[in-house]
Amino acid sequence: MTSHRIEPLPGYTPTIGRLVAMLDLARQGLISAVRDLSIDQLDHLHDARSNSIGALLAHAEAVERWHQILTFEDRMPAEGSDPAWLAALDLGEPGRRLLRGRSLASYLEGLAETRARTLRALVARDDGWLERPLPADPGKNAHWAWFHVAEDEIGHGGQIRWLRARL
Amino acid sequence: MTSHRIEPLPGYTPTIGRLVAMLDLARQGLISAVRDLSIDQLDHLHDARSNSIGALLAHAEAVERWHQILTFEDRMPAEGSDPAWLAALDLGEPGRRLLRGRSLASYLEGLAETRARTLRALVARDDGWLERPLPADPGKNAHWAWFHVAEDEIGHGGQIRWLRARL
Repeated sequence: MTSHRIEPLPGYTPTIGRLVAMLDLARQGLISAVRDLSIDQLDHLHDARSNSIGALLAHAEAVERWHQILTFEDRMPAEGSDPAWLAALDLGEPGRRLLRGRSLASYLEGLAETRARTLRALVARDDGWLERPLPADPGKNAHWAWFHVAEDEIGHGGQIRWLRARL
Repeated sequence: MTSHRIEPLPGYTPTIGRLVAMLDLARQGLISAVRDLSIDQLDHLHDARSNSIGALLAHAEAVERWHQILTFEDRMPAEGSDPAWLAALDLGEPGRRLLRGRSLASYLEGLAETRARTLRALVARDDGWLERPLPADPGKNAHWAWFHVAEDEIGHGGQIRWLRARL
């Protein structure tokens, strides 16, 4: 059931709760956009420059992981460490080559595990933390960073809906 | 200059200010996605079922106007009143027929005027209003409704970026 309210949530400080409600709405939109897709559909490339829907799901998880490191571990992520993660972050040609053959369940499980880590970290933080400058990137605050995670997911969700209508 | 903080803004109650910051980020993303497009580019149809980029800009303004009526005038919008507004809300075939021939400046002016009305209404309201059930649709609150405006704009912005890369 989709909630049609944004409000403080039990277990979180008020502004973090509202943010979690927004992250959840973005995620529900992403999940509804990919419902019941097969591996062939997830791997389909609309044209030579397109990202597959599966790659966009891997991207959503990768972006969330990137922002966990930035905001919870207080460091700039070292992207070089993992070729699959880098491909999921950057998409394009490496994404088309490396991000293939995974089932929808596998993508959704990865997304859910990463999200659970985000929520565990947010439960342990407060609204003062949310709006202070980030130690690893003081021009940003964590509220911006986590809104940006939702924004990226919603934007790619819009692309996924467009691509899915043409499978 | 894009801000990389979400935080309370002068003139608004704290949670409304954070929401306005998010609406502004979504709008900046939309505007950067359409920069310098010509009327021909705005009217281009990628395939027979696509919406033009111009139609998606008209849609963003129409969706914002719809939610102004819902949340500020406390009534369900009567969509039948204006064929161009209905086409912009629903997109598809009527949108392809009716939403053509406008310059980028004209779309952006309409978006800015509608946004200015939103901000004038939000300045006059408070955080209690933001999270109370909507009189015209009590399953929703205004915070959800305005996040949804941003969500719709961000999702179509993702489609616009995809379409623009293929003009």
